Amino acid sequence: MFSGHPKPVPLMPGHSPLMDRFLVVRTRTEALCAPLEIEDYVVQASMEVSPPKWHLAHTTWFFEAFVLQPFATGYKVFDADFAHLFNSYYETAGAFFPRPRRGLLSRPTVAQIRRYRQHVGDAVVELLEHLPAEAETEILNRILLGIEHEIQHQELLLMDILFNFSINPLKPAYHAIHAPSSAAPVPEMRWREFPGGIVEIGHAGSGFSYDNERPRHETLLRDFRLGTRLVTNAEYLAFIEDDGYRRVDLWLSDGWNTVQSRGWQAPQYWSRCEDGGWGQFDLTGQHALRLDAPVAHLSYYEADAYARWAGKRLPGEAEWEHAAAPQPMDGNFLDSGLHLPLPAQREGLSQLYGDLWEWTQSAYLPYPGFRPLPGTLGEYNGKFMCDQMVLRGGCCATARDHMRASYRNFFRPSDRWMFSGLRLAEDA
Amino acid sequence: MFSGHPKPVPLMPGHSPLMDRFLVVRTRTEALCAPLEIEDYVVQASMEVSPPKWHLAHTTWFFEAFVLQPFATGYKVFDADFAHLFNSYYETAGAFFPRPRRGLLSRPTVAQIRRYRQHVGDAVVELLEHLPAEAETEILNRILLGIEHEIQHQELLLMDILFNFSINPLKPAYHAIHAPSSAAPVPEMRWREFPGGIVEIGHAGSGFSYDNERPRHETLLRDFRLGTRLVTNAEYLAFIEDDGYRRVDLWLSDGWNTVQSRGWQAPQYWSRCEDGGWGQFDLTGQHALRLDAPVAHLSYYEADAYARWAGKRLPGEAEWEHAAAPQPMDGNFLDSGLHLPLPAQREGLSQLYGDLWEWTQSAYLPYPGFRPLPGTLGEYNGKFMCDQMVLRGGCCATARDHMRASYRNFFRPSDRWMFSGLRLAEDA
Amino acid sequence: MFSGHPKPVPLMPGHSPLMDRFLVVRTRTEALCAPLEIEDYVVQASMEVSPPKWHLAHTTWFFEAFVLQPFATGYKVFDADFAHLFNSYYETAGAFFPRPRRGLLSRPTVAQIRRYRQHVGDAVVELLEHLPAEAETEILNRILLGIEHEIQHQELLLMDILFNFSINPLKPAYHAIHAPSSAAPVPEMRWREFPGGIVEIGHAGSGFSYDNERPRHETLLRDFRLGTRLVTNAEYLAFIEDDGYRRVDLWLSDGWNTVQSRGWQAPQYWSRCEDGGWGQFDLTGQHALRLDAPVAHLSYYEADAYARWAGKRLPGEAEWEHAAAPQPMDGNFLDSGLHLPLPAQREGLSQLYGDLWEWTQSAYLPYPGFRPLPGTLGEYNGKFMCDQMVLRGGCCATARDHMRASYRNFFRPSDRWMFSGLRLAEDA
Amino acid sequence: MFSGHPKPVPLMPGHSPLMDRFLVVRTRTEALCAPLEIEDYVVQASMEVSPPKWHLAHTTWFFEAFVLQPFATGYKVFDADFAHLFNSYYETAGAFFPRPRRGLLSRPTVAQIRRYRQHVGDAVVELLEHLPAEAETEILNRILLGIEHEIQHQELLLMDILFNFSINPLKPAYHAIHAPSSAAPVPEMRWREFPGGIVEIGHAGSGFSYDNERPRHETLLRDFRLGTRLVTNAEYLAFIEDDGYRRVDLWLSDGWNTVQSRGWQAPQYWSRCEDGGWGQFDLTGQHALRLDAPVAHLSYYEADAYARWAGKRLPGEAEWEHAAAPQPMDGNFLDSGLHLPLPAQREGLSQLYGDLWEWTQSAYLPYPGFRPLPGTLGEYNGKFMCDQMVLRGGCCATARDHMRASYRNFFRPSDRWMFSGLRLAEDA
Repeated sequence: MFSGHPKPVPLMPGHSPLMDRFLVVRTRTEALCAPLEIEDYVVQASMEVSPPKWHLAHTTWFFEAFVLQPFATGYKVFDADFAHLFNSYYETAGAFFPRPRRGLLSRPTVAQIRRYRQHVGDAVVELLEHLPAEAETEILNRILLGIEHEIQHQELLLMDILFNFSINPLKPAYHAIHAPSSAAPVPEMRWREFPGGIVEIGHAGSGFSYDNERPRHETLLRDFRLGTRLVTNAEYLAFIEDDGYRRVDLWLSDGWNTVQSRGWQAPQYWSRCEDGGWGQFDLTGQHALRLDAPVAHLSYYEADAYARWAGKRLPGEAEWEHAAAPQPMDGNFLDSGLHLPLPAQREGLSQLYGDLWEWTQSAYLPYPGFRPLPGTLGEYNGKFMCDQMVLRGGCCATARDHMRASYRNFFRPSDRWMFSGLRLAEDA
Repeated sequence: MFSGHPKPVPLMPGHSPLMDRFLVVRTRTEALCAPLEIEDYVVQASMEVSPPKWHLAHTTWFFEAFVLQPFATGYKVFDADFAHLFNSYYETAGAFFPRPRRGLLSRPTVAQIRRYRQHVGDAVVELLEHLPAEAETEILNRILLGIEHEIQHQELLLMDILFNFSINPLKPAYHAIHAPSSAAPVPEMRWREFPGGIVEIGHAGSGFSYDNERPRHETLLRDFRLGTRLVTNAEYLAFIEDDGYRRVDLWLSDGWNTVQSRGWQAPQYWSRCEDGGWGQFDLTGQHALRLDAPVAHLSYYEADAYARWAGKRLPGEAEWEHAAAPQPMDGNFLDSGLHLPLPAQREGLSQLYGDLWEWTQSAYLPYPGFRPLPGTLGEYNGKFMCDQMVLRGGCCATARDHMRASYRNFFRPSDRWMFSGLRLAEDA
Repeated sequence: MFSGHPKPVPLMPGHSPLMDRFLVVRTRTEALCAPLEIEDYVVQASMEVSPPKWHLAHTTWFFEAFVLQPFATGYKVFDADFAHLFNSYYETAGAFFPRPRRGLLSRPTVAQIRRYRQHVGDAVVELLEHLPAEAETEILNRILLGIEHEIQHQELLLMDILFNFSINPLKPAYHAIHAPSSAAPVPEMRWREFPGGIVEIGHAGSGFSYDNERPRHETLLRDFRLGTRLVTNAEYLAFIEDDGYRRVDLWLSDGWNTVQSRGWQAPQYWSRCEDGGWGQFDLTGQHALRLDAPVAHLSYYEADAYARWAGKRLPGEAEWEHAAAPQPMDGNFLDSGLHLPLPAQREGLSQLYGDLWEWTQSAYLPYPGFRPLPGTLGEYNGKFMCDQMVLRGGCCATARDHMRASYRNFFRPSDRWMFSGLRLAEDA
Repeated sequence: MFSGHPKPVPLMPGHSPLMDRFLVVRTRTEALCAPLEIEDYVVQASMEVSPPKWHLAHTTWFFEAFVLQPFATGYKVFDADFAHLFNSYYETAGAFFPRPRRGLLSRPTVAQIRRYRQHVGDAVVELLEHLPAEAETEILNRILLGIEHEIQHQELLLMDILFNFSINPLKPAYHAIHAPSSAAPVPEMRWREFPGGIVEIGHAGSGFSYDNERPRHETLLRDFRLGTRLVTNAEYLAFIEDDGYRRVDLWLSDGWNTVQSRGWQAPQYWSRCEDGGWGQFDLTGQHALRLDAPVAHLSYYEADAYARWAGKRLPGEAEWEHAAAPQPMDGNFLDSGLHLPLPAQREGLSQLYGDLWEWTQSAYLPYPGFRPLPGTLGEYNGKFMCDQMVLRGGCCATARDHMRASYRNFFRPSDRWMFSGLRLAEDA
């Protein structure tokens, strides 16, 4: 991981690039909350999501626990109770408040959490300005990790706000923008072929990556083809209208049980209108289904069932990475400010980055030779390597500079509140 | 019910007593919320409680649905979605948002609900000032019911705030007052004897009462004795220290199962301190157990088990009412502003009113000849006449002018987040 | 309780009446199992029921634990593990195997349990033949209690077999009898009036009763009327066809929630036929609904809702007992061998005894002055005096000599697998 | 899969090898039930297991539904209700009785099911003797599949009996044999090294295999080492005594949650003795822990945690198969009649086959190019390819002629009632 590189970012006297990035990212977190009312910071509408104020505090606690407390001499903890409240899942860092109950806490208030952010942010800046020489590398690595961690939570923040709003009968909109309309129709789906062979995947070198992307290693691929773009709402609608949610032969066993027990009839956030059409809820509120936009908020089970129905399959994560690595990191990211997936814009292999995370058929498992980070930070990724599937490519809520071809995201097969989508593959 | 009296309160030109009361009660609801942060209005820490902002809106909806919509010509509904959100349990008034999910709604905001309160309050005042002659009695009766209803919710508001705060590790205080300390020790427990015979209980006459207090009727009592005051924390502690929570023979079967499954070892809001003593949480925050205060936040099961341990029993509701009816309506009510039960102050039969609701051994059942209110308001009380036990006398969160000797409160035997306490009785 | 009478049954040299009864009842338990296959003895199709073999063993353990172990010198326990397995709910007699898991035990086998019955039965006979003088009364009382207890379990056995069979798609019949058909139509429902006043209810004197029927005491009744017979299936069908299960205003709140959550649309064991008619499952198997038979297998909620729909109410238990006490103990009991409720046979007040237990509107609470039995047997009845409602009169699975006018049965308001039915009442 | 080979077994006039095998396997199923009492056939002590009589009927239904009904002209279904009762999970073959409720059915009786077995067995023999030429290959393939399917259920039968017996406080023994004791100590653990490279795994050729073992394909291995034998109880005990179940850093996140929520402190069927030692329950009943036997009844989580504690990892399924394929199919299988895992007997790579299924670190996913069987039989394996992990090598309850190097078994990571064990691996 980032242990291989002594200085992830060249430091300059005064305002270093790392400090720049730290300040920019911290500010962006708060900017993402600007459209919220105080009440919106409190709620947790399902066990999977967290209240926005919890995200604000947790990302701050991360710097306090892993950077300031071990390395900033004389640092005064803001509030001794916060470690208990805002530790997410680091078992070795002490007991933490139960996740499903995060939405039951009205205190600390948003104002107090903002003061907490200020307090910790100032201390990190202070530390960056007076780096102790003996731990310089470790501190910089950990601050960098804290920044990347906060960017991940920016995405979670948007996912969670969307979910919280979606269950409210008032159907609040996060922001009132209009999704830009396409001048041209979505390009036809085509198939890009890739020859097989031994290829390398995973991260190498001195740039930042998470531990789960390492080590870079060889893997064997067979000839395969990838669909040139994401599957659209219109295409997915054909699956629904072909009784896709009622044909058991299309589904994995666990998927079928989930469809039955939860009464799924469409992706999350779709709803039947009174006129028989379909509506869709997203961060711009409730509106008619955008047929040319990529289908979003699918579980693995649904992505897999659609692929079976279409006579295709999902890509493997190695196939995906092999295809994506040479592509430029272009796409519709958090940076666009839209926070919506957009229709494919051009012919050729597109949408690999941004728009929607793409389900792969790969279980989330350690790479050969995987070594987790030492100590508590080893819990960051490694302990989740079971019962989850890998998604690739980032989404419209991911910051562009957070993304890499080797980036491995992972969710449970039944999860679908994240910005997940679907690209098809087939054997060549 | 209150249908028997054409004008519950004499009306005067201009500002009538009813309008006075309406305005006072509405204002008091808001005053009770003054110590809250915006975040505090949102949370619902268990299925039994409701978010404070829900109480603010629901009591307002009650006037809108039962007074303004049927009787105020030209009234414009504030927001058509609110009926769904703020109907509590009136099935015949339309579908309502599920109770256990009230804490998942950040919108409408507190500010919007305050506007809703203003809008509805103005319309009620307007209606009171221009009463249509043909429905005058019905309107006045319903406004009076709405006022009493809102007073009930004032008590729920305090109960629910206490519960919400209690599960927060930060242990917030609702208000920072100091409980007044007693100059004298709690008077010794004595036994006041009452001869049996045929007595009358229940409400009669033209004053306000709920339908469940009627009709006034005869019942047969045997000679009995009542304890002169509530059982104290010190006395209850002796029960705990005598292994009260571990001796199955002291408990009803359902009670024992509840003790086991919930791990009860003391009343709600008690906690073990590190020094082995007991702490107590109440609206003033966390502090040491007040030994001379009456034991509070007991379930029926605990009250019953304590009585069995003490070789006594709980009073029947007819016994209680027969004993309490001649007593003056004195006591530690909401009006004191303390919102805490206080130690018994004087010799003789005391604490019947205020301080804490007293569990009786009577199931909540209809009085002979009971008739619920007609229409949707018939759901107010009657449909709960099963699976609950009666409590009597009001508490430190009940407004004094809301209380009557015939007042019947009711909770499930396992409930204990309300201000419930315990008075002993025995056969004479 | 039976503590008031030194010799409940006059003893004769040799074969005493008590010994006769003991042997007859023990044999009848086994005879009731004669139609079963070995497999039928094992299953427990819901948490409420017990496997037949458990009943066989538990009634035997009752004699072992409460008669033989304390009083039979030199008695050897059959199997030391059985106390754990076959104690039902006597907490003070030691830990017991969890009730919901009784159907998970294949061992001991039925053959072993029969040997256990023989072993214990022989020892009780032996003890009866050589009664130690100093404990004679206590022993006889306990044997009598054991006999009554076993009779209660005969009824449970039939209830539980019916439930176990009902969930089996093969719809097995317990016995293949044809229900006798009525020559005459069911007599019209009439209303028998009873004047109110102070009356006595409860058991007194030296005959056997349970502790919960004592002490006999005065109570005050108002003038009332009872329906002359049980409500029939045809009458209940009219309630269903009038949308009884879909009209919320007819139901108690807990009842409505139960109807919704369990999807009730009819009494237990009714089912829709493909032709739109109704079928009914009982111990004779699956057949068309018998319209003139009394409606059976109702919860309290359904009985209460029907009464509300009919503009009546359920009787109070004191009303019922006051009306029933002068009536002869005639009726369709276990002794008839039918184990089915029959249509009312004659004009006038009928069906008070036998056929079906009649729900009352009385909560199951202690009588004034109630004293439970001392020691572990005090758990027999008293600890259930909460959360249940009283039923009266016995049923077609109750032995006639087990019944008394003062007999109090009790179930939870949502229970309906027992032979429960419905008689209407009203104020006069 | 077996579709590629026209005649999996050479047929002879008269008694063919396939008919031999059919009869032998059917008889063995019944022989495995010989130690059972009738009552033992009925119970289902957890949702995962099935009652023995269900296994007897289900394996029979498999032949009826997939062989006789489609191919045996004039075949008369034994009982039309049985398809509903004994279909396991073939959704496209019609609705089936819910799996968690299989233990609630006392009927059909064991005797009826034996008649069912006879009826179907006779019809299969009859069909084998008069094979219709046009479907000969398909019929033979399906009979062969039915045989392999029944062998799988023989293993499930033993697993399920063990579980059912384990929760019974009487601790019944399935058979009273003594586990053979070892003359010599367990050989020391050594590490066998295998060079990496492109290797082939999966099944090819005309012999029988399941569809999930196909197609044979290339995969890339890195140099690795395998432990020469299974981990023993003694070795696992060291993990426990080193606080293995209390050290969160050793566990996957889901594993830790499972350990906490289920209170795991040792493998399934271990129990603390009063003297502080460990006992073990198996098909021979309750006895002291056999220290030299391989540790059995582990979940994936436990196997993974042990490996982490030991500084090793679990093998990948391709590593395992590559190492095992050249080995002779020797081992302690069902055929030994012991149904217990035995201590390793010899130096060198051992225990790959038989004794215990070995957890791999491979998720159960389709091989590249995987095609499920057509039609309903496609549900046999493919629909479970999610949320499960692969185990390899068979166990002491697997028939030797059922096993292949390419055989893929799969369970959920939290399952542990099967005969699962643990072999370590490491990177070379």
